Order: sequence, then C-alpha cells, then structure tokens
Amino acid sequence: MSFNTFGQLFRVTTFGESHGPAIGGVVDGCPPGIRFRLEEVQAALDRRRPGQSRFTTQRREPDQVKILSGTIEGESGELTTTGTPIALLIENVDQRSKDYSAISESYRPGHADYAYDRKYGLRDHRGGGRSSARETAIRVAAGAIAAKVLPGITVRAALVQMGELFVERGRWNWGEVDRNPFFCPDADAAQQMAEYLDGLRKSGSSVGAVIEVVAEGVPPGLGAPIYGKLDADLAAAFMSINAVKGVEIGEGFASATLTGEANADEMRMGNDGQPLFLSNHAGGILGGISTGQAIVARFAVKPTSSILTPRRTVTRYGEDAEIVTKGRHDPCVGIRAVPVGEAMMACVLADHALRARAQLGTPPQWPLPR
Amino acid sequence: MSFNTFGQLFRVTTFGESHGPAIGGVVDGCPPGIRFRLEEVQAALDRRRPGQSRFTTQRREPDQVKILSGTIEGESGELTTTGTPIALLIENVDQRSKDYSAISESYRPGHADYAYDRKYGLRDHRGGGRSSARETAIRVAAGAIAAKVLPGITVRAALVQMGELFVERGRWNWGEVDRNPFFCPDADAAQQMAEYLDGLRKSGSSVGAVIEVVAEGVPPGLGAPIYGKLDADLAAAFMSINAVKGVEIGEGFASATLTGEANADEMRMGNDGQPLFLSNHAGGILGGISTGQAIVARFAVKPTSSILTPRRTVTRYGEDAEIVTKGRHDPCVGIRAVPVGEAMMACVLADHALRARAQLGTPPQWPLPR
Amino acid sequence: MSFNTFGQLFRVTTFGESHGPAIGGVVDGCPPGIRFRLEEVQAALDRRRPGQSRFTTQRREPDQVKILSGTIEGESGELTTTGTPIALLIENVDQRSKDYSAISESYRPGHADYAYDRKYGLRDHRGGGRSSARETAIRVAAGAIAAKVLPGITVRAALVQMGELFVERGRWNWGEVDRNPFFCPDADAAQQMAEYLDGLRKSGSSVGAVIEVVAEGVPPGLGAPIYGKLDADLAAAFMSINAVKGVEIGEGFASATLTGEANADEMRMGNDGQPLFLSNHAGGILGGISTGQAIVARFAVKPTSSILTPRRTVTRYGEDAEIVTKGRHDPCVGIRAVPVGEAMMACVLADHALRARAQLGTPPQWPLPR
Amino acid sequence: MSFNTFGQLFRVTTFGESHGPAIGGVVDGCPPGIRFRLEEVQAALDRRRPGQSRFTTQRREPDQVKILSGTIEGESGELTTTGTPIALLIENVDQRSKDYSAISESYRPGHADYAYDRKYGLRDHRGGGRSSARETAIRVAAGAIAAKVLPGITVRAALVQMGELFVERGRWNWGEVDRNPFFCPDADAAQQMAEYLDGLRKSGSSVGAVIEVVAEGVPPGLGAPIYGKLDADLAAAFMSINAVKGVEIGEGFASATLTGEANADEMRMGNDGQPLFLSNHAGGILGGISTGQAIVARFAVKPTSSILTPRRTVTRYGEDAEIVTKGRHDPCVGIRAVPVGEAMMACVLADHALRARAQLGTPPQWPLPR
Repeated sequence: MSFNTFGQLFRVTTFGESHGPAIGGVVDGCPPGIRFRLEEVQAALDRRRPGQSRFTTQRREPDQVKILSGTIEGESGELTTTGTPIALLIENVDQRSKDYSAISESYRPGHADYAYDRKYGLRDHRGGGRSSARETAIRVAAGAIAAKVLPGITVRAALVQMGELFVERGRWNWGEVDRNPFFCPDADAAQQMAEYLDGLRKSGSSVGAVIEVVAEGVPPGLGAPIYGKLDADLAAAFMSINAVKGVEIGEGFASATLTGEANADEMRMGNDGQPLFLSNHAGGILGGISTGQAIVARFAVKPTSSILTPRRTVTRYGEDAEIVTKGRHDPCVGIRAVPVGEAMMACVLADHALRARAQLGTPPQWPLPR
Repeated sequence: MSFNTFGQLFRVTTFGESHGPAIGGVVDGCPPGIRFRLEEVQAALDRRRPGQSRFTTQRREPDQVKILSGTIEGESGELTTTGTPIALLIENVDQRSKDYSAISESYRPGHADYAYDRKYGLRDHRGGGRSSARETAIRVAAGAIAAKVLPGITVRAALVQMGELFVERGRWNWGEVDRNPFFCPDADAAQQMAEYLDGLRKSGSSVGAVIEVVAEGVPPGLGAPIYGKLDADLAAAFMSINAVKGVEIGEGFASATLTGEANADEMRMGNDGQPLFLSNHAGGILGGISTGQAIVARFAVKPTSSILTPRRTVTRYGEDAEIVTKGRHDPCVGIRAVPVGEAMMACVLADHALRARAQLGTPPQWPLPR
Repeated sequence: MSFNTFGQLFRVTTFGESHGPAIGGVVDGCPPGIRFRLEEVQAALDRRRPGQSRFTTQRREPDQVKILSGTIEGESGELTTTGTPIALLIENVDQRSKDYSAISESYRPGHADYAYDRKYGLRDHRGGGRSSARETAIRVAAGAIAAKVLPGITVRAALVQMGELFVERGRWNWGEVDRNPFFCPDADAAQQMAEYLDGLRKSGSSVGAVIEVVAEGVPPGLGAPIYGKLDADLAAAFMSINAVKGVEIGEGFASATLTGEANADEMRMGNDGQPLFLSNHAGGILGGISTGQAIVARFAVKPTSSILTPRRTVTRYGEDAEIVTKGRHDPCVGIRAVPVGEAMMACVLADHALRARAQLGTPPQWPLPR
Repeated sequence: MSFNTFGQLFRVTTFGESHGPAIGGVVDGCPPGIRFRLEEVQAALDRRRPGQSRFTTQRREPDQVKILSGTIEGESGELTTTGTPIALLIENVDQRSKDYSAISESYRPGHADYAYDRKYGLRDHRGGGRSSARETAIRVAAGAIAAKVLPGITVRAALVQMGELFVERGRWNWGEVDRNPFFCPDADAAQQMAEYLDGLRKSGSSVGAVIEVVAEGVPPGLGAPIYGKLDADLAAAFMSINAVKGVEIGEGFASATLTGEANADEMRMGNDGQPLFLSNHAGGILGGISTGQAIVARFAVKPTSSILTPRRTVTRYGEDAEIVTKGRHDPCVGIRAVPVGEAMMACVLADHALRARAQLGTPPQWPLPR
C-alpha cells in the first residue's frame, strides 16, 4: 500500500502539513556508499523554494534541510550513505495561519478542501494542510539523492508552455533554463511569459503550464512489464504532483493522429557497433522498457486554483457561499513544478535501476551471439 | 513490487504469452459474497475478442474463460466468491507461430522486441510473447469481476478520436457505442471512421486513437493522498495498456491554456441537500480524491506498429536490416483498447473502494455538524 | 498486501482449493536465463505427494505439474526462464467430496472451519477448501525453481522430533533422510517412529513433530534490517505452513536459558583468509543478516486435527454437536511438512538474494581496507 | 518491499541510529478521528525507557517524543488523527560515543557488527548504529497509537522466564507486572529474578528470557490466508525485535509432543448464544485467522551479547583479536522487550483490523442462517 510512500526499492515516504511544525521524509533502500554533500541537496531545494521572484508565492521559507540518519560524515563534510534509512527534515518557519481563517469553512474551487472533508470528515485547513504543494520540497530533496544513485544519467526539465505561449523548439537552450524565473529554455518565450504573467498577477488571476522532463544516458532495460512499466510508473509519479492533469511520453497525444509509418522509429547500426534510432517518437520507452534513447515526458499543470475573483461555492455545513482566496500564492504553479518533475524522474529511474539490478544482476550482452 | 500484479487490495496478477499454451490470472482480495455468472465475464471478453469485424486482427481466438478457484457454484449456476483467490484461465487456440519466424531476428520498430532483448537477453518472440496485447484479455475478465464489487457505479468507455477524425460531443450517444465496430458514441463519426480505416487496412497502414473512460456514481472519498491518488493510479493503469502514450483527467492538457477563473468548478447546494458542481473541469478528482462527480479520463493509443511498408531496422546480431510485419494485426489497436480501458477503470475503482473502506470504515457524514 | 502472495522480488502467488478443478500459482520476478527441467520440479513434488507410504494420507493425487508460461524450451527439453511470470498448474484428480458431507455443518476442532465461517460468512468446506495443506504442493514446485536461482546453496530439511521421539544428533546422516518415510536423519529414530506411528494410525490418533531446515553455502549479507530481516521473513514463511505453531532460529527458545558467555559465537581468522565462527548459536543470522554460516531453523507442527475419537463441537447454525473426522488424513502432518519447509527456505533465500543484489549490486569487499 | 517499514495498512516506517541526532518514524494509514493524548504515548515510552532500574542500561535518555504531523489539537490538548501520516521524533541526548571507540574495529560476538560490514561494506558503529535496540522506542510509540485503533482489545505482555527461572502460572497476576522491574506477573519469581540478576550484573554477565504477549477481546476474522496469516505476521513482528530467536503461538513447540485428542480445542454453545472454546491450545488462531479467543504468543530473547568476559573475535581488517564490551548495557535485554512485544502485537492487530475491514466491510453474521 502506498498512501504516502512512492517507489518500490528506492522508497520515499513523506509526512507533514503546510502549517505544521515541519515537513519531512524517509528515503529507504538507497544503496550504501553513495556520496553527496548536504549543499547539493540544499541547492536543489533552493531552485524550488518559494519567494525567488515576483512570479512565485511570497511565503518566505528558508527550506533548510537536515539529515537525521542514514549517512556517516567524512572529514571533508561529505556524507556517505550507509544503506540505512535517510531521514530528511525541513522545519516550517513562515506560517501565517491567520491568512487562512476565512477559508476554514468555505471550499475553495479547484482545491482539495471538499474532497478531504468528504473522505476524512475533518482536515487541517491551514494552507491546504497535507494537500499543499509544500510537500513537494521533500520530493526535491529525495530526488537530489536519487540523482547520485544514477551515475551517467542527466535529468533536466523545462517549462515548455504557459497558457497559449509555447517554447519554440529551434530556440531551445538548456543553459537558458536557470537564467529566467520560469525554467524556460527559450529566452524569447521567457520574455513573453514575464509580460503575460505580470498582467495575470496584478489581476489576481492564474494560468496553467506544460513541463517537459528529459533523461539522457539512461541504459536500456529499465522498466518491468506488465505492471511495472517505466512509463506507467512515470505517469503515476507526475500525476501525483499537485495540480497535474495530464501526462504523456514521447509523441503522447499527438500519436493518435499519426500513421504507423510516421510513428515508426527506424534503426541503423552505428559506427561504434551500437544501434541508433533515427527518431524518438517513442520517448525512449518500448513495451514499458527503456531503449537507451533519451526518455522524454511531459505533464500538464492546471492554473493555480487560488484567485482573487469571487467564485460561488458551498460551506462545510452545507450552505451556499462566495469565496475569494487571499493567501500568498503562485499565479502559475507550473513554474515551481519544474524541479519537482526532475525529482520525480530521478526517483523513478533510481527505483527502476535497482529493480533491474535485482532481477538481472549484470545486464545481458548485446548484440546476441548467434 | 509489481512486475505482473496491479492493485493493492483488489489485486490482479496475470501470466502468459501470446503463443504459449494459455494466458491467465489471479484476482486476489476480492470480497466474499460477490455474485456473478460466468456468462457475464465471457460477455466482457467477447467485446474485446479479436476477429469481431474486418477492422480487428483476424486471429480467431474463442477466448473461453475458465474459473479454477475462489467461487462456489449455486444451484442456478450463479457463482459466489468466497474471499479466496479467483484464478482465470484462457487457453490459446489459434497460434500460427510460423507467421512470426521472419521477425525472430529483426526488430520491429515500435514493438518491444529490442527492449526485451536488451533487458532479458532472450525472449519468446512469437506474437510478441509477453508484450502482446493478448494479455489484456485477462484484464477484461478481472474488470468484469471488479464491476461487481462496485454496486451503483457505471463504467463506460468510448473511442473519441481516430487519427484526425473526432467525435462531436453534441452527437454523443452511449447507446451507439456497441452498434459500430469502433465503440464510437457518434454514429456519423463511426461512418467516417469505417471509410477511413478501410483505406488504411488495404494499404497495410495503421493509425492512432483516443479513448475516453467515464465512471458515474462514484462516491466521494476514493483515492489516498499523496502517493495513492486516484488519478495517479488511473494514469499508471491506462499507461500500462499496450501502445498507450498519454493519459489525462478532466481538462487534461487543455487545462494548461486555461485561467484559474475558467478552470474553477463552482458549487451550489442542490434542492436535495447535496452539493452540486456547476462544471467538471477537474474530471471528478481533487487532491487525488474522488468528489462524487463523474470521473472522466482519456488515453492516447499510438498507431499499430505492425505495418506492411518496409522499415529500416537492425537484427539481434547487430546487423542492418529491413522489415515488413506480415502477421494478422489490427489497423487501429485503439479500438480493442476500449473495453480494456473500462476494465482498468473498474479494477482501480474496486481497489480504491476497498482501500477507503480499510481506512475509514463507514464514510463520514456530510455536511459536517457545527 | 499479501493475501496469497509471498516474497517481494521472487514472488509466489498461489490459488486453488483442495477439491476444486486445480491448484496453481505464479512465480513472478524470477531472473531470466535460469535453466531447469520439468522433471526436477516434478521430483520435488513427488517427495511431498500423498500416498507415498502407509503413514500419509491415502488420497491418490498424481500431482503432475504443468508450466503454462515464462519459459522457452530448448532442443533437449530443458526450460529456460525468460524473466516473465512462470505459471504452474496441478489438476486435482482424486476428489472424493462425499467424504466431507458430514463435516459441512459441524466444525472440526483444530481446523480452520470455524475461523473461515466467522471471517467470510461462507466457505468451500470440501477437504478444507483453501485451508487444505494441498496448497503447499505449489510451494514445493516454486521452491524447486527458487533453488535454481541459488547456485552454491544447499537447502535440506529433516524431521527431528515426533511426539516424544527425538533424533540423536550423533547419529545424524543426511543420506538417511530419503530412506525412510519420515524424512528422519537418524535410522534408529526412524525405526521407533514407524512403530509408534503404526499404533497411532490404527487408533485413529495423531501426533505433532519438529522439522529442522538447514541452508549451507549462503553468502553473508542476505537480510535487510529492520523489517526485512532474514529471520523475520523465515519465521513468517514457516509459520504460514499449515499446522505450524512455533519457529526458532539457531538456539531458539533454548537461548533464554543461556548466559552471554555461553551464547557468544567466537571468531578466528582461518588459514584461507576467511573468518571462522567457532560455534553457531546464532543459526547463521545476526541483526537479521546472514553471516555466511549455515542457517539453521526449526518449526513445530501440531498433531493432525482430524482424528477418529469423537470431539465436542458446535455447528455453523449454533448448535452443540459431536464430530468424528473420517476423511483420508495423515497421522503426522509434520512428515509432509519437511519438503515444504525446504521449499519455503529456498524461496525466502532466493527473494533475499535478489533484494541484496538490488541494494548492493556486487557485494562489498572484506576484509575492509584500512 | 519492507526494509524499514512494517505493516500493510497500518504502516510504520522507522529511521535513526543509536548515536545520531534523532530516531523517528512515520505511522501511515491510521484512520482519521482517532483521539489520544501525547501523554499516553509518552507513558508507553517511559515503560521501555532505559535507566529505570539497576537492571537496565544506565544510558539516560529522556525519550521525549514529538508529533510533527497527522493530528489536529483540540482545546483540551487532545490530539485527533486526520488520516494523514503521523511523524514521530525522539531526539537523542545521551550519546557517549567515546565508549564505543574501542569496538569500531573488532566485531562483538552476537552483535550485528560483522553482518553489517559484510552486507554494506561500512557502518555507523557507535552504539550499534541502526541495529541498536534504541530503534524499538519508535515501535512503542507507534504501538500506543495502534492501541487506540483497537477499541475493546486489551494487549498485555509479561516476562515469563529468565534463564532457568520460570513464572508459576498459578501465581500469575497482571497487576504485578508493573510493580517489579522485570514486568514479571509472579511476585515470588520477580524476587528470585532480582537476586539472580544482581549476581549476573556484578559479574558482567547476561542471560536470556521469554516474553508472553496476550491480546484479549480480539474479534474473530482477523488474518488472511494463506500468506497474510495473523500468526505468520506476528511471528515476523516478534522475530524482528532485537535478539529474538524464537516465536510460538498457543501450545507452540509443546504441540509437537501432543496427540490430536489432547490438542483439540473442543467447543460448546454458551448461554449467551455465543460459542465457547473449552481450551486454547491454538492460542486464538486457526488457519491463520483469529477465532475470538485470547491470542497468546511467546518469544525467546537471547542473552545480551555485550559482556565483560573477554571473547575471541576478528577485526574488520581480518586480524584475530579479543574483545570486552564496556558500554552501558542491560544484563537481560529481554526485560525491555516486554513493552516492545506489546507494541508489535498492537500494531499487527491494528493492521489486520484494517485489512479485514477492507475485504469484508462489516463482519458476517454468525450463526449462519439455514
């Protein structure tokens, strides 16, 4: 059962509410002997941290992570995993709970308030409680450790669509991603997004986005048919991120319009004795198993549900009401979902790398002998 | 771990290869006292069965299912579950293995051949072996049992897009779905699809599709945050179906273009004391938990990879080659994915219904007392 | 969840009732490329098979196992696993259901009848249905495959106590185990057991037993603290066998009477550069992890509950009653538990070997460098 | 996978090393609406806490538990669970790491040092690191919450054997258990134990023990055949406690010496229309399912491995050595295992209560209608 745990062999369990004393998590199953520095985990968190620009929530959380177990510290301050569970803890600092008193009774459309009350009969309403995107900070910390389990693999993500604004593939530059507040790989599009989002922000509105996550250097053989398919696990991982409403791999929904000829990824032997794919409609996964091509996935994030325009709703006591959500929020939650998407990809790949090692030991030789 | 099992409490484990002696599965965790007739399971299988029209593979499999355990038979022939594992078995009959001799060495683009060889170092190549869509017959049988666990819930699916042909929402008629060979809810669109697909079939080509699955009557409270979200589990379930490349819930990818105002599902109290949603952009799920609205999901199926046009590829021995796939195949595998989509939805809902019962016992009262 | 599945990475799911059409199971997670012959699996089953001597039930089941998936057959008839699920099927042949009509209403003391009715509200009463020891045949078949996953490991079991008759350690001879109908390693004790059991059998009585299972050649490092301890998993595995009421590792319950000095397994470096333990009170496991010593476990089996002496009981309708169990039964079910114990040890070790490989890849070097 | 998690639906994940900054855990799956006071959890911890008498380690740990998530606090200070994960944290205070510098190189016989080094290639050696019994504090805290999930069930444990000193059943008095430092239900035996243990303590020796755990008020129907048997899960739970080498249910190993007649638990209808068992050889479990009788289990704890008598051993660098363990330790670790045994029983029962509810909803009626 997986209420608050994801992964099978590289397992991450998280806990904590938006306005409780702390959020945290446990990484279990991490191999021993993995080396990393606390600063590397912190750096990953800093990318996701709120209050980085005027386009994200002004909540001021330092998001300082502590590691409580599972590592031994070397003389240089480098940490080495011991194979025991790694506990992560981030104390909550800036909890302006009074902002939320107005919404304790009326359900915010698009938020999980109503669903939690119907499921549990009670909830911690401050800042969304457990359903707050604040929980994703721990995913990012876990993802930074997962990345260390995957030598030779590069996982990167970028925002490729905001509302009707699209990245142009010809202008894609990974180096641009950390130079604008949107994790956008196209400098021109980023400029347009800044103008567009300033308008939305001032009017108290919000908009959706699409994130693309790319993993390069993934070896063939990750993913276990039929119900441990790599793409199925990625779909669940991305869909579990707050506000995500769609996931696709490779061509994704566009593949519905293609013919078999157009969609076929042809192959040729390369000069180095390795096979080459001549295209990547599959997004690096066939039959649920990685092929060695780059894994390409996208997910859609709905617009932030907290907006300043009054909306009709009901109260938890069964009365009609109107609501305006006044808290500090992101006009485009898709932005901060970019590092979360990277983290989920890293965790899923680390998990599947361990799974493949379990069943296969060393990978089989290829080409096969006659 | 879930190599060949899906679900946590309503668990389905499948086995079998396309051209082995049989395929089968085990449904574990089904509550005792559930009544059904073998004919009902068979009827579900008959909808998915190959050879039903000229638009699906001409392989002639009777797909007669046997139940080997887990039920006791009443005098009327009705079966009652006992709470012990229900084993399902379908013997393979029409296995023309010679059709596949040509492809034992060269990898078919878009198929799992190459990925299996890279992962396992060997494979049962006949008809795709374990990666064949034939495995989905057992999902359909399990789904028919799952549906019995869900009184009051109606799960239906329809093909809503084939290539560039789209269903018109205004002409949607569930009654039409079983009157055409495409499970298409729009009679006019079905007519166009027939013409279009005839052309493709004759040229040995293929095309993709989009399936929509709708569950009505789902109670609020199914789905467990954060990593047992109902939408995350649905995403994994649909993505695990052969050839699926994308999944979305409610507005899905379109939500990226919406503003918060446009995407908000407002609420009002109804005359019966129950809350009403005034729209369903969320697709019936908020925070990973069902709200009581209809659950609406879609998934994209890529075009059948087996086509008659020669494609460049490599052999398992590392040589360049060309390949034409001559076996009996569907020009649009999306068609037969419709009953499979229904089955996956039913299985996921049954699983989550049991999970909710475990944690909550009887659902909480709503509205809440002051 | 593990209603009918055991193991995490080497997973065995079983199904079937004593008097249904068949029993069977699915082995999932088995590595590809493992070679075995069907005859080897059959030979393991033949050791457990009923009707082998006058001391076991006279039910005549050929217990012919079929493999329905997961292997490819070589020219020599040798099977090679492909990494996909291996389905096992044994058809039930000798089902004299009429023997059981008398017990459909009255609960047999010591049997699971009453517990099943209280849990499920209904049950398949013929021959104990799902609770019958017949289910263990599939464990034995799975164990034969598990043993192939463990090159260099020898798993053997023996009956070491029957009632008040004990094996003398000084007369222990593994070669004797298959020369008497009790799997007893002490020829003299076996002779005594034969006489004793003949008496019990004629009077319609029964007696308990203790089985010892020994695994040699187990590498250090199997078992994952804290909740995947090797001894904890062995305890669950043995306790899941029908009629088992106790499990111990190494000194077991006797360790309660020892002092720390007496219980310490001292060590010395051997001439080959490998460490030697000077005793094995620990039974080969420390901190839940194998040390490289022989793993030694024992489990206690209660006397067969079916006896000819009338016992007081109640009916499922809440009436007082008397019952005599007339079916064909074993006077000492502990005997046939011996191969089952071996199988469970093999399955647990295979599972943990894969788990260790997942987390560790290749085992660490020892001695450690300074 | 369950490296550091136990339970399926009531899940407990623990982390932390003996001499790290903190130990902690996450309870996931706990139903919402369960009420308890922090003081109740603390009281359970205080019973297990070290330094309570001269017979347990003199390490001075206040073991103050904090709850970081998963509850909302009422005006009276009472906590109510929300259905989200409950995080528990205990900071380590008294970490005299220098005591352990001598043992960083030489393996302590009976401890997990050697096994950890062989498995992981490195370890946190201070105080046993992760293998320290300190981890069990979190089990006790989790058990206190589990007990709240089980209204009407009473779980109690007692030390029934220390070395060759046995409790006399006729003098059993539950009220005595908390009046002596051994959790012994027999005042006379407790007196003998005090004298005996004083001698052992002064000589730097240690001894083993047997603990009995009894659960009363358990409803029939907990436990899921075949691989989720209640007794199998209890066996794993108890065996996972540090230093435990044996587990038995009901008659346990003594059942091997019984005849079927002697072992049969006969039944009669009681005056209240409920069935009565006339004895409890089964220990409250038949076929892996609770019968409604008291559940009776025992486990054997080996003598503390840390002793003052020098023992031969080897170093991690492959050299012969001698070792004396000088740290602060318990002469009989079995004593502090008593509250841990209670906690494990409570957690397993809570887990199975949720599992039964998942599959069955409301329990079936009994007696059955004709």
